[in-house]
Amino acid sequence: MPERIGNKTIILTSSPSIIGYGAVVGKKEAEGPLGNYFDKAYYDEFFGEKTFEKAETKCQMEAIRTAVKKAGLNKTDIHCAFAGDLLNQCIGSSFGMRELGFSFAGLYGACSTMALSLLMAGVFVDSGAAENAVAAASSHFCSAERQYRMPLEYGGQRSPACQWTVTGAGSAVVSLHKENNPKIEKAIIGAVRDLGITDTNNMGAAMAPAAAQTIADFLSDTNTSPKDYDMILTGDLGYTGSDLLLQLMKEEFKTDISKVHYDCGIMIYNREKQDVHSGGSGCGCSASVVCSYILDKLKAKELNKVLFVGTGALLSPTSSLQKESIPGIAHGVLLSS
Amino acid sequence: MPERIGNKTIILTSSPSIIGYGAVVGKKEAEGPLGNYFDKAYYDEFFGEKTFEKAETKCQMEAIRTAVKKAGLNKTDIHCAFAGDLLNQCIGSSFGMRELGFSFAGLYGACSTMALSLLMAGVFVDSGAAENAVAAASSHFCSAERQYRMPLEYGGQRSPACQWTVTGAGSAVVSLHKENNPKIEKAIIGAVRDLGITDTNNMGAAMAPAAAQTIADFLSDTNTSPKDYDMILTGDLGYTGSDLLLQLMKEEFKTDISKVHYDCGIMIYNREKQDVHSGGSGCGCSASVVCSYILDKLKAKELNKVLFVGTGALLSPTSSLQKESIPGIAHGVLLSS
Repeated sequence: MPERIGNKTIILTSSPSIIGYGAVVGKKEAEGPLGNYFDKAYYDEFFGEKTFEKAETKCQMEAIRTAVKKAGLNKTDIHCAFAGDLLNQCIGSSFGMRELGFSFAGLYGACSTMALSLLMAGVFVDSGAAENAVAAASSHFCSAERQYRMPLEYGGQRSPACQWTVTGAGSAVVSLHKENNPKIEKAIIGAVRDLGITDTNNMGAAMAPAAAQTIADFLSDTNTSPKDYDMILTGDLGYTGSDLLLQLMKEEFKTDISKVHYDCGIMIYNREKQDVHSGGSGCGCSASVVCSYILDKLKAKELNKVLFVGTGALLSPTSSLQKESIPGIAHGVLLSS
Repeated sequence: MPERIGNKTIILTSSPSIIGYGAVVGKKEAEGPLGNYFDKAYYDEFFGEKTFEKAETKCQMEAIRTAVKKAGLNKTDIHCAFAGDLLNQCIGSSFGMRELGFSFAGLYGACSTMALSLLMAGVFVDSGAAENAVAAASSHFCSAERQYRMPLEYGGQRSPACQWTVTGAGSAVVSLHKENNPKIEKAIIGAVRDLGITDTNNMGAAMAPAAAQTIADFLSDTNTSPKDYDMILTGDLGYTGSDLLLQLMKEEFKTDISKVHYDCGIMIYNREKQDVHSGGSGCGCSASVVCSYILDKLKAKELNKVLFVGTGALLSPTSSLQKESIPGIAHGVLLSS
């Protein structure tokens, strides 16, 4: 049963388990340093579908099916699903849910969605509202580019702080506590923070302040310090945003997290070889990294405590055209072995 | 603490209370039959802002502030907020949350969002994850038209099954049980259902099958029948969709709900005088009707049991251009006096 601690943190007292998880990605992600950890990769950006949007739906659906299968469950065992993506009206998720048939609560947290969906699934299972809940998120480079930026055919040049939207999806099945599975111990819902960044090619800078606030709040609420964690893993600040996060943590919150800080956007690509500028981004980035490498290492007890903080930039192309700055948000879950 | 009953329904055993609520609307809604029940109305479609999107943000923010004030709470008493809207990347909600500063979980359920946000707030409060949680949703006729349909200046003719997007927002503060306030007793998360409707001017038809399924599931899980409710209130099927719902309930589920069925999309406008064709729609429709008239009547004990089923059409303009049919969803909460 969830209990509140401090200002914002929720303890999931029964420690719900992640009993199955899956990640499905595109070619570039499969060729990156974590390539061997993903369950499946498609080397055709359409995933055999007619449009990029349908490809994204397929990617998320396959990640969910993999997670449910690895959990040893049937479709009917899933009491509810929490999922989201970057597409307008979240069609990457809802069209997949049409086929899967789960009770479905749609989320929008931009690139923080995987953390938010794990958090929701954790609270529902811990509280008794569900026995088995699915968490999922996805993104697709091509569907994101045409929605947020330019048609691919335009071949626009990318600025150095730009991140590359991951083509990929991750999903986890959260269930009543079962030994020898990674657990969700705590969760924190973040608040929107906006320090006035208006450069839509620098999402890392827009999201870093929210990440810093959520990490600081979590450490304060739980009375812990960075050394208590194997990883404080941000959900895709990339190189630029990660640098800013470390600075903000030091200057604003007098905390040095540099020894344990990792970022999914940095981990997923090889910067030297893959021409991704500031790293990966998109809901599918942290979703695919957490639901493969991170959960594998937790399961193998090579990692024991990972504070995963998903970060999202809550802008839209319309808000940017209207000269609004970019609100950032960050949600966290404490994953343990 | 939440308990599952039947296949999909969740009992909120502590019966969390709605201790404050508010609704803010535009001119057309203020001139409708429920005009006197809303807390505030703006007669300028810009709400004094520069763009329709900022007007929507203001509308939702004011509804939330009204609800929190009427609950007798301060900003710092709110442990988390669940909100959503129809705009791409849900900017109607996130930009308001930037100013309000709450821990914020973004939802996407199209016009079902108010039911989904009440459900989430209910589960969080019932479980102990929050003491006070905000639920909110909004829509704006002008921001929705330009995003989903045509520029207003084009003056496109509307077909008879078309619904009119409500300019309005509603918000409720859900808290630990307190006597003499309306309660959330039960909740149900719906699954996506799509019977193949492709006409984007007939959302009622696209959403009716999901509404029928959720109502039938709820009645079955709780072993109740329509006569046990003062109202089975759908969250905006309009005239066309309501007719179809009654038919589907009879033919598919052998249940006659016609004596207790009401629809927020029908209630909010005067069809004869207001030229709205099939009625109202948009997240703000059920949000503003429930967070004014319905909760007033529950508080006054003139209504005692209202099964509120929010209905959403999970399409996007892109999915329609790609010739996809329209997935519908419906989430329910049982409100009692």
